Amino acid sequence: MADTPAPAEVTMDNLVALAKRRGFVFQSSEIYGGLNGFFDYGPLGVELKKNIRDCWWNDMVRRRDDIVGIESSIIMHPKVWEASGHVAGFTDPLVDCKVSKQRFRADQLFFAPVVVDGKTVGYVSALESEKTTEDLQAAAETFKRKKAIQGTLAPVQPRDMTEAQPDEIALIPSPATGEPGSLTPPRAFNMMFETHVGPLRDSSSVAYLRPETAQGMFVDFKNVVDTGRVKLPFGIAQVGKSFRNEITPRNFIFRSREFEQMEMEYFIHEDADWKKAHDEWIEWCRQWLLSIGLPESHLSLYQHPKEKLSFYSKGTTDIMFKYPFGVQELWGIAARGNYDLTQHAQASGKPQEIFDEATKKKFVPHVIEPAVGTDRIFLAVLCAAYAEEDVKDEKGNVEKRTVLRLSPRIAPVKVAVLPLLKNKEQLVGRAKELYAKLKRKYAAFYDEAGAIGRRYRRQDEIGTPWCVTIDFDTIEKDGTFTLRDRDTMEQKRISEAELFALLDEKVY
Amino acid sequence: MADTPAPAEVTMDNLVALAKRRGFVFQSSEIYGGLNGFFDYGPLGVELKKNIRDCWWNDMVRRRDDIVGIESSIIMHPKVWEASGHVAGFTDPLVDCKVSKQRFRADQLFFAPVVVDGKTVGYVSALESEKTTEDLQAAAETFKRKKAIQGTLAPVQPRDMTEAQPDEIALIPSPATGEPGSLTPPRAFNMMFETHVGPLRDSSSVAYLRPETAQGMFVDFKNVVDTGRVKLPFGIAQVGKSFRNEITPRNFIFRSREFEQMEMEYFIHEDADWKKAHDEWIEWCRQWLLSIGLPESHLSLYQHPKEKLSFYSKGTTDIMFKYPFGVQELWGIAARGNYDLTQHAQASGKPQEIFDEATKKKFVPHVIEPAVGTDRIFLAVLCAAYAEEDVKDEKGNVEKRTVLRLSPRIAPVKVAVLPLLKNKEQLVGRAKELYAKLKRKYAAFYDEAGAIGRRYRRQDEIGTPWCVTIDFDTIEKDGTFTLRDRDTMEQKRISEAELFALLDEKVY
Repeated sequence: MADTPAPAEVTMDNLVALAKRRGFVFQSSEIYGGLNGFFDYGPLGVELKKNIRDCWWNDMVRRRDDIVGIESSIIMHPKVWEASGHVAGFTDPLVDCKVSKQRFRADQLFFAPVVVDGKTVGYVSALESEKTTEDLQAAAETFKRKKAIQGTLAPVQPRDMTEAQPDEIALIPSPATGEPGSLTPPRAFNMMFETHVGPLRDSSSVAYLRPETAQGMFVDFKNVVDTGRVKLPFGIAQVGKSFRNEITPRNFIFRSREFEQMEMEYFIHEDADWKKAHDEWIEWCRQWLLSIGLPESHLSLYQHPKEKLSFYSKGTTDIMFKYPFGVQELWGIAARGNYDLTQHAQASGKPQEIFDEATKKKFVPHVIEPAVGTDRIFLAVLCAAYAEEDVKDEKGNVEKRTVLRLSPRIAPVKVAVLPLLKNKEQLVGRAKELYAKLKRKYAAFYDEAGAIGRRYRRQDEIGTPWCVTIDFDTIEKDGTFTLRDRDTMEQKRISEAELFALLDEKVY
Repeated sequence: MADTPAPAEVTMDNLVALAKRRGFVFQSSEIYGGLNGFFDYGPLGVELKKNIRDCWWNDMVRRRDDIVGIESSIIMHPKVWEASGHVAGFTDPLVDCKVSKQRFRADQLFFAPVVVDGKTVGYVSALESEKTTEDLQAAAETFKRKKAIQGTLAPVQPRDMTEAQPDEIALIPSPATGEPGSLTPPRAFNMMFETHVGPLRDSSSVAYLRPETAQGMFVDFKNVVDTGRVKLPFGIAQVGKSFRNEITPRNFIFRSREFEQMEMEYFIHEDADWKKAHDEWIEWCRQWLLSIGLPESHLSLYQHPKEKLSFYSKGTTDIMFKYPFGVQELWGIAARGNYDLTQHAQASGKPQEIFDEATKKKFVPHVIEPAVGTDRIFLAVLCAAYAEEDVKDEKGNVEKRTVLRLSPRIAPVKVAVLPLLKNKEQLVGRAKELYAKLKRKYAAFYDEAGAIGRRYRRQDEIGTPWCVTIDFDTIEKDGTFTLRDRDTMEQKRISEAELFALLDEKVY
């Protein structure tokens, strides 16, 4: 796929429609009107997602000698999140409207003074959108007209509520009511979902759904060191669900409230060249994304500016992906020093150190953390793979085909087996025999319904890389099948042994 | 493994110690003193668990034509749990001690009248244990002695708090204080973990962590039918985390508060022979357990008596496993009629029907539900696989070996590659070459440290079915290796092609 030019224009509407139509992604609890920020994966989606996850696990853990996996619980001891800083600092700034009882993220609620002939005559507000400035300008014009104010309206200068001065807040209208006076100053809202463990429901039983999987690796660090025969540098990896109570989930599965993370903590010596390790992991992640079929043209790097980093951070680089809604973070690779282990050592009273055979000294290792969301990769993969093309059918008529150019490594179905005709017992028999054999190791699909062209199209749309057709040559001549390639649509003859060799080479 | 006699005596202490020592299972948040009812899986545990899950997924979904998978969100719309009956009925009876503020499960808090010369002179209580009756008898004797009551004490007749009469409750001492008067009558305590979604924290934002994955299949039923080209009978399967706020989690990972389920809903025609389908699924599940190595001797069936079934249930049979702490439920196979779909149709106002081509009528399909916990299988597998044996070493000395007789399908490491000597470049080179080749497809382990016998023992303890030793014959003669079998400890020569054929046959 990396060789194929990326599709020029994929819209989110197209993707969401395909995802629903072909059973990749559904809204959670759809029959009850859905639940904002939660999604379900359908029959094809669950396979694609599992393949992405398994590819990552194989490449990150099983095929490497320096990385082991763990699976820690979603609900951990609340002290974990005190030590990590999440209880105090994992917040979004929120503004309340005291009249409507609605809440807004302060950084998504924009306002502007209405300035006429150089004088501020009032305020307008608007929720962030693709045309925030235009909305505010229009609101300012309406404000001036309704109040019958004469003079020249200046172009609006939008700011968000985190930038509002105390004396301005009372003058800014609530987007819910249109009237000023009801908005509160921004205050910190913790994004962790809270629950209670055990029969009592009080402060002693509060627990959180983890907002990241990473802390599991830090908290289990000593257990892994003590049982795993690991030595520096080494990594601990985990795949699992995380939860963030986002105020405004958006962009389909890109920013949801329940999502899956694939994170790895790579521990290095305190004296090691962290910059080199950091660069190597950035490149490893980039190569891995290419290996599952994301096109180089859609990837870019974003280095976080020094002044925006946490005090303990040595540097963070994000691998960005060009989504239809903009270039957004896909994979963050952070050099976090020894902050996390040090925090847990202090909070738990249990040293989180490693013994250095060379210097005979104990020290707390430093860490490089590549962290990515499975759902974000899933969405990136769909975006990059989706294409609509004009192609000629057997009769030379131009028709549209929708195709998902998924890498064979992650495609939900690897190969479809199609008897040319469904009423010829020999064709069907041989097709079913091959299908059974394939299915033991590979996700295969058997389809005998409809014209062969239509069957190809159905497989194109779900991203099946190869179709194998059993025809009269198969049973009357040399036993070979027709292998049809999804991307080139070319057909060639292939033997069963060659087919298995092809799959063995491309699928793992 | 099914052929090997099951180990006579495995204790939970042995298992928990091995699980900790070799990195299978840790206590969650252990450095903070742990969190009751939550567990983490370590480097080997996560592989074993993933293999169990993947085997189930392959056999249940990918290799079948009639079952598709989904992955629904853990947090669903709260109306799902109203319709399913969980909000009203998924409860345990709890008793409060008003003085100590402790809570007890009513069915685990036992009491008995103290009867002297046929007259009730007071009450004693005890928390359920392996010797509840003895505890109560001893407490009754102490009571009689302290109160200096003369006469003959009758043997205690223990009942639990769900059976206490209203006038008895005030007389039963609290286990926390030893004094009567502070216990409340039992009341229903909902076992679902509760949280709030969105910025407001009130009754409108309450949501639950799912207590089972099954409702995801029912709620997504129509979406799957509309997109998946399925026709009756067909199943929808899911693997994922569920949460139950157990008052007294126990027996290691057997009954925990966060656990993983593997559930499947098999939809059948309303006129189909449900009994036959039910029996077939019981047998399928039993065979599957054998296929991953559980011994037939440890499995039994338990048919729920008719009077204990829910009103809608047609029948439930559990596959039981002989754990060290008793024979307990492993896999429940329930015939649930059309209850769940009907409930959701009523609650959502969206019909949950299928069109019958034959009769041209719509109807709500019935369902057979095999539901099993991954963690329970994990524990069963460890119990059945664990053995301590006396074996002779090379010099004929008897030594103890600990071995996990795990099926090759689920063993965390399939094959270990061992160069006979680590200071012979040719041996090490050939071993590493083979290791790299194996690792592309199979979980392999390379070990060059220590005597070969010790390396075998290390692999025995983690359940690696085969060790391959590269010796001088490998490089000087025919290229074959020594293949050592974990269970028989026999050794034979094998070629690379034969090794790959063996893995291909046994691992999938």
